[in-house]
Amino acid sequence: MVVAEFVSELRARFGIEFKDLSILDEAFTHSSYANEHRELGISDNERLEFLGDAVLELTVSDYLYRKFPNLPEGELTRMRAAIVQTKSFSSFSREAHFDKYIKLGNGEEAAGARQRNTLLEDLFEAFCGALYLDQGRAAVIKFCQQVIFPHIDAGEFRGISDFKTALQENLQQDGNADIHYEEVSITGPGNARQFNIDVYVDDKLLGSGSGKSKKRAEQAAAKAALVGLGVIS
Amino acid sequence: MVVAEFVSELRARFGIEFKDLSILDEAFTHSSYANEHRELGISDNERLEFLGDAVLELTVSDYLYRKFPNLPEGELTRMRAAIVQTKSFSSFSREAHFDKYIKLGNGEEAAGARQRNTLLEDLFEAFCGALYLDQGRAAVIKFCQQVIFPHIDAGEFRGISDFKTALQENLQQDGNADIHYEEVSITGPGNARQFNIDVYVDDKLLGSGSGKSKKRAEQAAAKAALVGLGVIS
Repeated sequence: MVVAEFVSELRARFGIEFKDLSILDEAFTHSSYANEHRELGISDNERLEFLGDAVLELTVSDYLYRKFPNLPEGELTRMRAAIVQTKSFSSFSREAHFDKYIKLGNGEEAAGARQRNTLLEDLFEAFCGALYLDQGRAAVIKFCQQVIFPHIDAGEFRGISDFKTALQENLQQDGNADIHYEEVSITGPGNARQFNIDVYVDDKLLGSGSGKSKKRAEQAAAKAALVGLGVIS
Repeated sequence: MVVAEFVSELRARFGIEFKDLSILDEAFTHSSYANEHRELGISDNERLEFLGDAVLELTVSDYLYRKFPNLPEGELTRMRAAIVQTKSFSSFSREAHFDKYIKLGNGEEAAGARQRNTLLEDLFEAFCGALYLDQGRAAVIKFCQQVIFPHIDAGEFRGISDFKTALQENLQQDGNADIHYEEVSITGPGNARQFNIDVYVDDKLLGSGSGKSKKRAEQAAAKAALVGLGVIS
């Protein structure tokens, strides 16, 4: 069974109390441990990892969709991929101290598996799968608000891909700025149209951009403006 | 705006009534239409597709997880991939008559995009994203119960990969059968153990199987039993 110390830590740090501790235990059981202790008839965490992967995908997608209303689909997908990956999830796992509590077989323990990123990623997903089964998706969202979303809010995964939002944030540091985008022209044949757009702040032209949709052209114009302002190079 | 005929059809066939018709409209707006009618200032369905993709991934994963309690993670992942793909989603889209209602630009219409599988897949995802935003995940689950889950229940995506469940279903057609799995031996070195398992029905040996985990060995034994029974070859 899960150690009492971990149960206390989950309660104290995240306000999480599992109704069914056996499902939490399953999430922290690596296949190497289940195989070495077959007399216990326990399951490893791989099925929970399958479920948790999907729960996290939706939770992150929903957050990004609402947080970045101007971001085109391609950029949302790129950001989601940057968040939902081994490097990020293993670091969230460490942040939550999950590495302390995973149960490993002796061979894997000796091989240093406890700090292996792919193992910690799987563990993070399995924990979220278990939390979802035990308490529903709202509990997973609450957990992500503590562990994942602050990193998104800090801009860690944005690169500077949402140039419109970055421009707005930059200009509004000094009070209100009236930013507007104006279409200059549409060029190219019907099946390969190109939109050409200028961005103005308080009637001053800051940048021009082109793209195959209005949104992309606006992003390109905002990017040009950020370059002109020396925010990015 | 969405045509009244489609609103009626959604209500009559699926019991769905959107609170916000503009979000339904967005789901059925292809980028080629939005680009040709830029004076309308409308959004295409690509962001909703991003969200719907994740909603469907969780809805399908949750269903598979609960429906197949004996299936190992690898098989769940394989089945999910078989469901969450262009061929399946485009056929669900047609089944729901979505192809009739997508708004396309003239160029794309002329190019036959209305029956293009990738477009219909994206449309199916966008619709589910819109339904999720308008009415929450329960409404998406209900819709999937009508459009996706019956195909899963009919075994369309299973191949015969879950041999244990298939064996159970086969034997229990003729009333109750006492199926049990017995471990014969564990062979191989510690880091490459092989489990050897026999399956019995009412004390009659039906098959033997081996695998690197107990679950895999049981699946192999059940498969051998199904071959012996002439159910599969």
